[in-house]
Amino acid sequence: MDDTEITRRLAKWSVDVTHDAIPAEVRTEGVRTFVNWLGCAVGGARHETVDRALETVQMFSGPRRAQVLGRLERLDELHAALINGISSHVLDYDDTHLKTIIHPAGPVASAILAVSESRNISGRDFLTALVVGIEVECRIGNSVYPDHYDRGWHITGTTGVFGAAAATGRLLGLDHQQMTWALGIAATQSSGLREMFGTMCKSFHPGRAAQNGAMAAFLAKAGFDSSERAIEAPRGFANVLSTRQDYAEITEGLGTRWEAALNSYKPFACGIVIHPTIDGCQQIRAQLGPKVEAIRSVELSTHPLVLELTGKTEPRTGLEGKFSVYHAAAIALLRGDGTPSAFTDEAVRDPAVVALRDRVKATSNSAIDEDAVDIVVTLQDGERIELSVAHAIGSLERPLSDAAIGEKFFQQSAQVIGEQPARDLLAKAWDVEQAGDIGSIALATAATP
Amino acid sequence: MDDTEITRRLAKWSVDVTHDAIPAEVRTEGVRTFVNWLGCAVGGARHETVDRALETVQMFSGPRRAQVLGRLERLDELHAALINGISSHVLDYDDTHLKTIIHPAGPVASAILAVSESRNISGRDFLTALVVGIEVECRIGNSVYPDHYDRGWHITGTTGVFGAAAATGRLLGLDHQQMTWALGIAATQSSGLREMFGTMCKSFHPGRAAQNGAMAAFLAKAGFDSSERAIEAPRGFANVLSTRQDYAEITEGLGTRWEAALNSYKPFACGIVIHPTIDGCQQIRAQLGPKVEAIRSVELSTHPLVLELTGKTEPRTGLEGKFSVYHAAAIALLRGDGTPSAFTDEAVRDPAVVALRDRVKATSNSAIDEDAVDIVVTLQDGERIELSVAHAIGSLERPLSDAAIGEKFFQQSAQVIGEQPARDLLAKAWDVEQAGDIGSIALATAATP
Repeated sequence: MDDTEITRRLAKWSVDVTHDAIPAEVRTEGVRTFVNWLGCAVGGARHETVDRALETVQMFSGPRRAQVLGRLERLDELHAALINGISSHVLDYDDTHLKTIIHPAGPVASAILAVSESRNISGRDFLTALVVGIEVECRIGNSVYPDHYDRGWHITGTTGVFGAAAATGRLLGLDHQQMTWALGIAATQSSGLREMFGTMCKSFHPGRAAQNGAMAAFLAKAGFDSSERAIEAPRGFANVLSTRQDYAEITEGLGTRWEAALNSYKPFACGIVIHPTIDGCQQIRAQLGPKVEAIRSVELSTHPLVLELTGKTEPRTGLEGKFSVYHAAAIALLRGDGTPSAFTDEAVRDPAVVALRDRVKATSNSAIDEDAVDIVVTLQDGERIELSVAHAIGSLERPLSDAAIGEKFFQQSAQVIGEQPARDLLAKAWDVEQAGDIGSIALATAATP
Repeated sequence: MDDTEITRRLAKWSVDVTHDAIPAEVRTEGVRTFVNWLGCAVGGARHETVDRALETVQMFSGPRRAQVLGRLERLDELHAALINGISSHVLDYDDTHLKTIIHPAGPVASAILAVSESRNISGRDFLTALVVGIEVECRIGNSVYPDHYDRGWHITGTTGVFGAAAATGRLLGLDHQQMTWALGIAATQSSGLREMFGTMCKSFHPGRAAQNGAMAAFLAKAGFDSSERAIEAPRGFANVLSTRQDYAEITEGLGTRWEAALNSYKPFACGIVIHPTIDGCQQIRAQLGPKVEAIRSVELSTHPLVLELTGKTEPRTGLEGKFSVYHAAAIALLRGDGTPSAFTDEAVRDPAVVALRDRVKATSNSAIDEDAVDIVVTLQDGERIELSVAHAIGSLERPLSDAAIGEKFFQQSAQVIGEQPARDLLAKAWDVEQAGDIGSIALATAATP
């Protein structure tokens, strides 16, 4: 593989690709991505993490041209990108590019919706930028995954900054040279450690990626230069942040093979690796009926990543609960829940949940796929229920329907902005490509006092 | 070495250390660091890199509580930290912690001067925060250098963000827990690629480190949490960004052995590795007198890092000239210059300089120390001048005197703000520890229209 001009070629493509050149099915997935992201951003808007970040940035906001989604506050574009990126990821309920575990929409959509509001951007141009940004982000992710992730980088942050830069750069009308710089300025801000999982900094990563990527595009527009080989140079992003570099993943099939079409949407508000467990436990709950009270033990046989990422045996907070396959199994069995209400402090501390959680055992089995699980539930009377999930709900094999995405949107957002506004917003979101001015959608998320 | 609680212990020390506990000679070095940094920030204030960054951030500035040094504009604290960090480093004329090649003041001083202005901070508290921030930054650098730098990280950016966070955190009165979070939020933003050397992004790194570190402290103050083991955890800063981790460098001798006392100040406006060459060539020029016009060839025997970092044979711009040991030797011989005027586009393109530059040969010799060089100059008539520099001027063995730091300050800043304001500012800067309100120094840098 020719490893020259990778950054330039990606920049050129990002500038040149047109709306019409994006296949209809890719655009449709872009719309689903947008709807899912918007619901998550509104749904997460009242989280304590958002409150604390917002309290901080209020002190520094410039002209308030952009809406904080699902709230009343407005901020300058860059700070709005940060906060909306945080709120869209804070419930761990957003979207996933399964090949890389990137959550693609947060960094990209948060950047460009905030930037669009005061610039009279059509829904059509917005959606094109969204798809391009996600394509850039996921292709860069593909080129370094899994080594980059294994080393400890939160890949949503590290690659999201490129996606945000490319998408914002399109809206600002960057030329090839400026877009190359924008990707370079993005590269040199690439950051985010997996060590932060379970803390407020996890959702800070897509927020900061949105903010920093947008800033990169604005700087490039002003002629602020950077290396023009920021991705592939010996001391560029891929070599410094990863031991694997496969540049063909970035440049081959650009415009014909679409990573943006491979997005998936979480049915459950936690790390994707626990989804098969929740799916299976919900199915077992349906089988058991009232006998769910009589569970003696639960045995999970899972992909090794499950315990690596979500092996917390005694979560103390709702946030920590997202990193406990034990809690996830217990709450799915006892309440049938995998939505944000399953991962509150209350849910994690509920004595009945704790009692069942302590009877859940999980073992790693490298023969089990990432989106699969084997579950054995034993009742007090010795009855055993065995169940295998081959592909969790929400995977590419069992994608969420539009109706399920809409229901997920409504459930989350109605709690924050009220039922009728949530319904209206959902309709607008599905029609994003036809919007004359995308800013009207941002405004429609404003919570009523 | 016990590798637990590294982040916590560093945070605790950063909060607890008092002004009186800092030895007088360390505080004196802190004052020299401040004077040198302030002169560089004012001296670099009109650079095109600063213009472009400022044009961008003007759009997003919040309440304008902080001065852009050496200019008329004011910005919110975080954006001022960014711009002042850029201007202080853009001429490659600032300071160097020689053990790590960190340029310590930029990220730290830029953050805390901007934050101090509206908070009525005394010079005494300011200087304490400066010394603490530099100590944190350099100790973290020591723990991962050289592997971290060799991998391609611009260590001034990656460690500067910690220094800025710790120093800002002191001024905000963070408690132990909050300071631990601040260091964590800093860790997860740590970034900056050496690939950017020779572009505007190089000085962006200390600027962004200042801005991001300050932001980390404000977030922590608002209760935004992070990992509490951000430096030493298996997926923390040191393991993810380096193959070497020596945590004793961070925690041992805190408060007794002071890295902040080991700062050095550049006599020449370029990467420190070329300094021995400029020093030697200036000495040869003094010996040769008019015969400098009759040089046939120049041979340099240098430490291997010199050609690795500054091996550009045909620099096209002033900025590229800083990465050309050939240009540096030629301009030092022909004009005796190593100040910013030696690294302008004009200087790099001067036909006489180019002609001599093309007759400079450099070879790597691993037996030569980093602050040494062997030079042989041969004249047209065959006369040879040989000269060895054991320790370049500006090294710890031959430190710049206070008078030389003052002269450097005046030369740079008088061109930007005028001679009398520069003289007045210099006097204020030397008296920093006695300042009732450090903000008055920032205001005194404002260029007259």
